[in-house]
Amino acid sequence: METSGNFFVALQQKLKIKPQNKRVYKEAFTHSSVNQKTAAGYPLNFERLEYLGDAILNSIIAEFLYHYFPNAKEGSLTKLRAKIVSRSKLNEIGKELELYSIAEISNHHNAFGDNIHGNLLESLIGALFIDKGYDKTKRYVMDTIIMPFIPIESLDSLILSYKALLIEWGQKNKTPVAFETNQDKGLDPNVNYSCQIHYQKKCIAKAKSSSKKKAEEKAAKIAVRALKINPKVE
Amino acid sequence: METSGNFFVALQQKLKIKPQNKRVYKEAFTHSSVNQKTAAGYPLNFERLEYLGDAILNSIIAEFLYHYFPNAKEGSLTKLRAKIVSRSKLNEIGKELELYSIAEISNHHNAFGDNIHGNLLESLIGALFIDKGYDKTKRYVMDTIIMPFIPIESLDSLILSYKALLIEWGQKNKTPVAFETNQDKGLDPNVNYSCQIHYQKKCIAKAKSSSKKKAEEKAAKIAVRALKINPKVE
Repeated sequence: METSGNFFVALQQKLKIKPQNKRVYKEAFTHSSVNQKTAAGYPLNFERLEYLGDAILNSIIAEFLYHYFPNAKEGSLTKLRAKIVSRSKLNEIGKELELYSIAEISNHHNAFGDNIHGNLLESLIGALFIDKGYDKTKRYVMDTIIMPFIPIESLDSLILSYKALLIEWGQKNKTPVAFETNQDKGLDPNVNYSCQIHYQKKCIAKAKSSSKKKAEEKAAKIAVRALKINPKVE
Repeated sequence: METSGNFFVALQQKLKIKPQNKRVYKEAFTHSSVNQKTAAGYPLNFERLEYLGDAILNSIIAEFLYHYFPNAKEGSLTKLRAKIVSRSKLNEIGKELELYSIAEISNHHNAFGDNIHGNLLESLIGALFIDKGYDKTKRYVMDTIIMPFIPIESLDSLILSYKALLIEWGQKNKTPVAFETNQDKGLDPNVNYSCQIHYQKKCIAKAKSSSKKKAEEKAAKIAVRALKINPKVE
């Protein structure tokens, strides 16, 4: 358990947070096991801030994905968000930030399971939001929590449709990318479709698979890599 | 279907919105049945904004409840939010705001079910957020969407514990409220507990019920009404 002085030093040095409302950060790092109470006798621990932080984090990620994948459908955005803010991912990030080491917990040797790390991460986000508002919290979450732990390449690999990305890229650059997909009759039914992708009169990628869609995605992925296309926010 | 001119007049007159980013409001009111496409050939309709608006609305309500019920536990806040932003409630509000009448839908005589109203409400919130940011969207949502449709009395009736409210009120006003609860032996087991509440040496409420907790809540509710206590945000 840290003393109050050490706690605010750690907040500033490890987490780069300069608190205005100090009380709310103390609350964010107080576990129910400490059994702390408000003046009116109600439980005082990080659970209410965790509830708030969970909602704010969901909004921040929703906004980020909305802009980052301007053509993705609503269902895909929902799936992507679920991957990014999965319980295991939040636990991993909270652990990496060593939030547990500055938390007030009645017995640090107790096993609270891995969820304590993700819960502290959410309550920290809740405290930031109360202290600094939505926009500053978004910047902090993107810079400190998302970008270092969810790198561009990992999102890249979550691209929803390489074919769509490729066609859009071709239209934007006014150099169309052409897909030629054929059914290979009489061959192995497991690799029954082949796709070739043409760009500037050259075949830049080809692939085979069990469906038209799969063959096209497989070839498009190769082409996206070959053309070094990056689905950056604009 | 409204022409573009009428659409922005309606937006301003009916919904009191002055758009900066006009395009995003058009998107928020375009149904997939219109089959509109972006320049790159992707579907253009309100579904992406609905996804974003859903997240933002959840954050706004989470923040509101966090402040409005400063002593409620995380589980209760979650339940309260679910009640406020239930599908049927959103549909009811969207219908009341007549969002459907300014939406672009391929065939207004088609039955899209009641969910269209709630979906349009969420996509409107998404558009507001893109156009005006979190804080202005929050103010709009509270003033135009929450307060007129989720009146204080309705939240009041969702109070989690009248007993807790009453005790806290007594502590704040330094005039304690005392609960006297007894088991009524030998009587009807369905009304086996009785509770009397004393305030300034007078009995201000009494109630009977099948459990200690129910009798106390029943009496506390009467006392809260009698003392005209309102769980306002501070």
